[in-house]
Amino acid sequence: MASLRAVTAPRGCMAVSSRRPCVIVRAEGQINPSIRKNEAKVADFVTASELPKPKAVLCRCWRSTKFPYCDGAHLQHNKDTGDNVGPLVIDTAAPASPQ
Amino acid sequence: MASLRAVTAPRGCMAVSSRRPCVIVRAEGQINPSIRKNEAKVADFVTASELPKPKAVLCRCWRSTKFPYCDGAHLQHNKDTGDNVGPLVIDTAAPASPQ
Repeated sequence: MASLRAVTAPRGCMAVSSRRPCVIVRAEGQINPSIRKNEAKVADFVTASELPKPKAVLCRCWRSTKFPYCDGAHLQHNKDTGDNVGPLVIDTAAPASPQ
Repeated sequence: MASLRAVTAPRGCMAVSSRRPCVIVRAEGQINPSIRKNEAKVADFVTASELPKPKAVLCRCWRSTKFPYCDGAHLQHNKDTGDNVGPLVIDTAAPASPQ
């Protein structure tokens, strides 16, 4: 459930009357709507050598049905909201650099 | 800018009167408030062998000042909103498994 915060006198706010202060109610919601909500914090631990090859595409929009991997769900989220989120892509095929 | 969606008869909604249907206005906002908003889609491309060792901690809350790496900003976001997001942690020290 999104929390609501009242913000007084924001930049660009047009007061309707001088006796009614200009107030915007801003909704500040959760990023993750449904993934493992029974966990206090959804952190994922993976081993680099076990990532898919030749690349691993990791979800950062919290809407993938393949989470923690990307299924392209960010495209619909961006379309719906005007957002610009995208995945993390890891090239797992390149040889290790010399130590 | 968050979009608003009216949702009728949600679970737990208490109608004020029988003639006024119960309506909650839910704000469905963007996940990314400020990172590279001049880009249509923020995808990051990294090479596994160049990730920090012994582990790489990748941001998934879009609030890190070290994006695409985690700076712990998800902790404040979770506190503020009741969310449960966390980073992706990649163990980069483990030896590669046999091919």
